[in-house]
Amino acid sequence: MNLSRKLFAELLGTALLLAVVIGSGVMAERLSGGNVGIALLANTLATVGGLYILIEVFGPVSGAHFNPAVSAVMAWRGELPAGALLPYIAAQLIGAMLGAWLAHAMFDMTILQFSTKLRAGTGQWIAEGVATFGLLLVILRAPSTRVAAMVAAYIGSAYWFTASTSFANPAAVFGRLFSDSFAGIAPSSALGFVVAELVGAAVAVGIHHLLAAAPTAATTPAATGEARHV
Amino acid sequence: MNLSRKLFAELLGTALLLAVVIGSGVMAERLSGGNVGIALLANTLATVGGLYILIEVFGPVSGAHFNPAVSAVMAWRGELPAGALLPYIAAQLIGAMLGAWLAHAMFDMTILQFSTKLRAGTGQWIAEGVATFGLLLVILRAPSTRVAAMVAAYIGSAYWFTASTSFANPAAVFGRLFSDSFAGIAPSSALGFVVAELVGAAVAVGIHHLLAAAPTAATTPAATGEARHV
Amino acid sequence: MNLSRKLFAELLGTALLLAVVIGSGVMAERLSGGNVGIALLANTLATVGGLYILIEVFGPVSGAHFNPAVSAVMAWRGELPAGALLPYIAAQLIGAMLGAWLAHAMFDMTILQFSTKLRAGTGQWIAEGVATFGLLLVILRAPSTRVAAMVAAYIGSAYWFTASTSFANPAAVFGRLFSDSFAGIAPSSALGFVVAELVGAAVAVGIHHLLAAAPTAATTPAATGEARHV
Amino acid sequence: MNLSRKLFAELLGTALLLAVVIGSGVMAERLSGGNVGIALLANTLATVGGLYILIEVFGPVSGAHFNPAVSAVMAWRGELPAGALLPYIAAQLIGAMLGAWLAHAMFDMTILQFSTKLRAGTGQWIAEGVATFGLLLVILRAPSTRVAAMVAAYIGSAYWFTASTSFANPAAVFGRLFSDSFAGIAPSSALGFVVAELVGAAVAVGIHHLLAAAPTAATTPAATGEARHV
Repeated sequence: MNLSRKLFAELLGTALLLAVVIGSGVMAERLSGGNVGIALLANTLATVGGLYILIEVFGPVSGAHFNPAVSAVMAWRGELPAGALLPYIAAQLIGAMLGAWLAHAMFDMTILQFSTKLRAGTGQWIAEGVATFGLLLVILRAPSTRVAAMVAAYIGSAYWFTASTSFANPAAVFGRLFSDSFAGIAPSSALGFVVAELVGAAVAVGIHHLLAAAPTAATTPAATGEARHV
Repeated sequence: MNLSRKLFAELLGTALLLAVVIGSGVMAERLSGGNVGIALLANTLATVGGLYILIEVFGPVSGAHFNPAVSAVMAWRGELPAGALLPYIAAQLIGAMLGAWLAHAMFDMTILQFSTKLRAGTGQWIAEGVATFGLLLVILRAPSTRVAAMVAAYIGSAYWFTASTSFANPAAVFGRLFSDSFAGIAPSSALGFVVAELVGAAVAVGIHHLLAAAPTAATTPAATGEARHV
Repeated sequence: MNLSRKLFAELLGTALLLAVVIGSGVMAERLSGGNVGIALLANTLATVGGLYILIEVFGPVSGAHFNPAVSAVMAWRGELPAGALLPYIAAQLIGAMLGAWLAHAMFDMTILQFSTKLRAGTGQWIAEGVATFGLLLVILRAPSTRVAAMVAAYIGSAYWFTASTSFANPAAVFGRLFSDSFAGIAPSSALGFVVAELVGAAVAVGIHHLLAAAPTAATTPAATGEARHV
Repeated sequence: MNLSRKLFAELLGTALLLAVVIGSGVMAERLSGGNVGIALLANTLATVGGLYILIEVFGPVSGAHFNPAVSAVMAWRGELPAGALLPYIAAQLIGAMLGAWLAHAMFDMTILQFSTKLRAGTGQWIAEGVATFGLLLVILRAPSTRVAAMVAAYIGSAYWFTASTSFANPAAVFGRLFSDSFAGIAPSSALGFVVAELVGAAVAVGIHHLLAAAPTAATTPAATGEARHV
């Protein structure tokens, strides 16, 4: 019940997330004097701070998924009603596109544009798989009071340790299609990223279960619970 | 009651906030060898750390608004007595000016000066509206134990993702008028920024209510409270 | 009991830690335009974020040692069963090697390679001793709810204040042997680092006991406990 | 009682603090390719992380002052026995000198050296006064569970917003005398810094009392307490 409020939160939160990612990428590229390292440092710090507050602000309303891979896992686990999955994903995709446009409006850029930045190859796909695997593992295992800080810290790290700068989110891929800027991704590269992300998310679910109760472990509630409350 | 103590806290806190913003901007510009990206990174980190401790230190005394837009929203919500609003704003504006002067004194600059940096245009005004919208949304929805960290993280992000570097505060605009440095704003650009900020703050109040209880939701206290305590 | 689950966590966590350290080092070196300071800043921030979430995620399963020096101290204190020590170390070493290879796969580098970066000399060894001393002191004295944040903050600081950039971990030394990149260490330099680390860890255990109950102090439980709960 | 343990903690903690400040300054200067902004960013982040963990680690033992100005204020308030003040200060000064020497040993520098960096003038002295005022205000008003994070965040900000890069600590002045490096201060500049710091600390005590109970406020315990527990 009260799905409309949740969908509004997902749409608005995802829009703001993409405005943060793309907007700070534009600003960083403009100010960094051609040093891409400085630009990505600034893009990283802006994303970490923005993601942290967006999860804290919208978490109590909708769960603050902002990410179809996260919503799919939550639906699979029964934490999101099955009937809400497609509406959630639609809200996230629309929000992502609107967020890209908001960034363009703020930076006096053409609103409607498409990225030409190719991102493909085995290394990039492994990186997106690893990035999304890590994100889902954090989400599945973080204590609820720390999940915002942990997700933000994780993404900040993954911007640098994965070769793809860690999109880790099909909605982020979709929104970045619409921006021919530092943070963009060409439409022809999108499918590879999304497939890699979904594989990474699925692996995370499997590993999560292995960690919670390995083959030789008793599977009593107490033993399972032990892994989450130390 | 005890308004004088609160006004002193708002004046001192806003003065220190502007000293942090302007002082770190001067230091950053001097040390960054012409790379504006490095300068804004340093200015951002100094602002995040300073804002965090100022809110923690002065919050218990005056609420640590340091911002007429915040005080106006709090008065509108009944969390600040109506009669305290104008004194709060006066204390913030005086503090902001004194903070600029303190920064100049520390850096051996002429105390009384005026910025010549023009900041105007549709993109800049949209950016200031978005920046202030986000700030108020964070303030209205953050748990009280995390509001200092969340506001600091938000402003750190907004320095980069908004095209205006996120003043988001009419008192900050006022104080920065008095500084012809990295963080300054020309007097002729001030009115546009302040109007955009007030519009952003008003939108935040509206969105806050939509998120707390969307049209289809029950508006019982429990349902409203759910959005803030998860 | 349930050792296999713990070993899997140590292997996976150490692999991810090394992927973070080496992967972000490669990315940072590629993007920083030859400025090693910018590269190490990025490498530091990625390591801090990654280490924080890895300790939070795997701590409840295995203790999140990821480090033979830590496991040895825990075994010596009776907090790790003696029979688990060698399996823990084996899992950490294998994980470290796999993590290096994962980083290489993401960045389209030759999987199997060996570092040629010599790291030796009195200053380097003192630095590794100090780095590991500090790490163990933090681990032994941190409140359990803050240990992840404190270890991450410590390592971020130690990347800069120790002349060796603070490996502080024999498994990290082992994994970095396999990477001829920014974060690598030549096999001929490994033994010196590991010996220095073990000396530092032993000194930390001694200092920890001195701080908990100095010669003139009463050694009642209350007095000892005082040092840890303020 | 048990003063020797506390003195050992002050000596060791101050030594490590100075090793962090000076060591990271040396590393930063070596790696930053002549860009002082990058060097001070790295020096700042290393200091923030190091200060945070040192206060958390040694706070339960000795209060983690590491600073004669802090110890003097605590003695004046009755939170440190009067007879412990001079031993505390001696431990801090000896520790600071040893910390400088430890940094030099790690970086293969001459152990015994003296700074030649002049730091003087009205702006510098105002800056040191402001820096120490802010530090004491944070210490006097921070909730005990957040004081480590708040002091670290404050110093990180003050490295940039004060013209003196915020020594804010007579023991830090003393230790940095012994290092002809990025973080050093010439002996001839020391007295001016220390005087400014003590003035700043005294002002903080006065302002702290004004905030706790302004002239028009009731001075009941409840009213005084209100300022610290919100």
